[in-house]
Amino acid sequence: MTERLAVTYVLACSTEAEARSRARDIALEQTVELPDSCYPSEIEERIVPRLEELAPLRAGSFRAVLSFNLGEVGSDVLQLMNLLYGNISLKPGILVADVAWPAELLATLPGPRFGIPGIRKLTGVADRPLLCVALKPMGLSSHALAERCRALASAGVDVVKDDHGIADQPSAPFDERLARCQEAVAGTRTLYFPNVTAEPGRLDERIAAARAAGCRGVLVSPWLIGPGAMRRLAETSGLALLAHPSLMGAYLGADRGIAAEILLGDILRMLGSDAVIYPNVGGRFSFTRETCDALNERLRRPLGTLRAAFPLPGGGIDATRVPEWIRAYGLDTMFLVGGSLYRETNLAAAAAALMERIELSARE
Amino acid sequence: MTERLAVTYVLACSTEAEARSRARDIALEQTVELPDSCYPSEIEERIVPRLEELAPLRAGSFRAVLSFNLGEVGSDVLQLMNLLYGNISLKPGILVADVAWPAELLATLPGPRFGIPGIRKLTGVADRPLLCVALKPMGLSSHALAERCRALASAGVDVVKDDHGIADQPSAPFDERLARCQEAVAGTRTLYFPNVTAEPGRLDERIAAARAAGCRGVLVSPWLIGPGAMRRLAETSGLALLAHPSLMGAYLGADRGIAAEILLGDILRMLGSDAVIYPNVGGRFSFTRETCDALNERLRRPLGTLRAAFPLPGGGIDATRVPEWIRAYGLDTMFLVGGSLYRETNLAAAAAALMERIELSARE
Repeated sequence: MTERLAVTYVLACSTEAEARSRARDIALEQTVELPDSCYPSEIEERIVPRLEELAPLRAGSFRAVLSFNLGEVGSDVLQLMNLLYGNISLKPGILVADVAWPAELLATLPGPRFGIPGIRKLTGVADRPLLCVALKPMGLSSHALAERCRALASAGVDVVKDDHGIADQPSAPFDERLARCQEAVAGTRTLYFPNVTAEPGRLDERIAAARAAGCRGVLVSPWLIGPGAMRRLAETSGLALLAHPSLMGAYLGADRGIAAEILLGDILRMLGSDAVIYPNVGGRFSFTRETCDALNERLRRPLGTLRAAFPLPGGGIDATRVPEWIRAYGLDTMFLVGGSLYRETNLAAAAAALMERIELSARE
Repeated sequence: MTERLAVTYVLACSTEAEARSRARDIALEQTVELPDSCYPSEIEERIVPRLEELAPLRAGSFRAVLSFNLGEVGSDVLQLMNLLYGNISLKPGILVADVAWPAELLATLPGPRFGIPGIRKLTGVADRPLLCVALKPMGLSSHALAERCRALASAGVDVVKDDHGIADQPSAPFDERLARCQEAVAGTRTLYFPNVTAEPGRLDERIAAARAAGCRGVLVSPWLIGPGAMRRLAETSGLALLAHPSLMGAYLGADRGIAAEILLGDILRMLGSDAVIYPNVGGRFSFTRETCDALNERLRRPLGTLRAAFPLPGGGIDATRVPEWIRAYGLDTMFLVGGSLYRETNLAAAAAALMERIELSARE
């Protein structure tokens, strides 16, 4: 690999000298883990990232660009995460704000197997936003969850996915739930995506079971199964992967961590997510509109030869506001709605009304 | 499982009413993900955690204890992480400050296969702190790294471990490095622990190769391979596991995340770490002395029938200050030293002097 991996950090510090010293500290911490002068100079040239740029940003922060010789310091996606944020996750005031991914790196990564075009083909919907409804709550029986699936399918919902906390609880064990819910959508155009998140071994069993039952996709939490397992699912499962950000919020600090559009956008897409769930602005979480826009852009923009992934905003989207979000985010969006449908007495009617709103909005 | 999992949160908020409302929000967010009154009352009793305590802590924060009915809402260790911090990782001002682990849960977890007693047996050292030296820097050839191993072994160092960023780079490919370094310690009492962190499949190959080469332990980064893979290594690898906190720092905010002693202490121990590397106070990172003490205590205290794990403070420990850390942390500690030895011209002599200091200090 001859191209370099350029990482832009935002550093919380007040003087240029301090910023330079912190950038140097990152360069050493993420590679040789030794102080200056404790290693041969040829290692400096070959291994330690180069400071390409350093500039003041706003009061109290600087922008530093380090470029890594990825062919010498990288290997798999775990080492990539390690280089980007491994040890410096333990230090305050460092934000990975942008990354320029070398084409050679992108060529080694699966990216979405389906992506926007593939999921459009699976659902048979060419020209409007998609609707995904979360199946909940945890604690309902498989039978009751399947009844909800049936109601949602009768309303023509595109995708029904398990809530990410619905795993293998006694109220709705995985195998039983899979069978009942898949039965409930049989003969309709609705796709049921079960949550397969599980420890190794069990994860493979659930993927195999989902495929055998006829599911075309699954829900998975990449930071629970680990980024390496996520990549492997993309390469081997043959199923569309909706990625859930469980545990990932810890990285999304304002002045510490990894920018949301990099972690949930670029990285989850590179690992093979066909759609990425994120908490929409104005819902139960605290993403800004700018973050949502940046995320949408990262999931859809040209990126090597990787397919575009669907943005899947959720986390408290009100069904009545979906038309407004369609205008804001565009047609290549899948909307995740849950609570605001379950508030209604008649789930099927509420979901059908929402589907109609989506179809109308798309024609505007 | 009849005992409940009691989780203590510290919430950043100013009034009791706000604290109560935020605790309720956590209870719903981590289980049903629905607003109040959108689910049957029997689900409230069976699934939604109960608020057991609510008390003001210091200005601007409250302590809330929620108890989860783990038999109904849990399943594997991924779902456990999901319950503890999955969705709320996306919300500011929530710290998982303590967890009371039910005995029934602990009984299902591997814990350390070796732990303090097992690693003492492997190293043949009954009565003093252990010394672990990091093999570095990234970029050296396998031959040069093996030379360093040989020097450290000649000094009687207990364990030599790969730096966590040394993976499978062209300068020192995994298989070659393993062979050379293991050769270098052959016939001595020094143990070489290679870094096996890798994507699934490759991880198993590296574990098998390490075992076949005669290694008795390995270095691994649990948050890169994922907590489920970590548990599986503890259950199946037969090797001692030194856990590295790469990527885990993001969770360790002062008012957001998971307290270090819970995540690096209890959780890494429950998942089967025989020793846990953490950044010592006064080094390159920012842990306080209180955090280090709390972590040491959590790794060693009685916890179900799980073995105690070695605290492995590192991240910039100066070789000359080790005696002082022995007095502070006690004999059941393994010290990770790196940079301050490589600063010296004669690595073997510097390491031998440190070993002598450790032996002397232990007799004080």
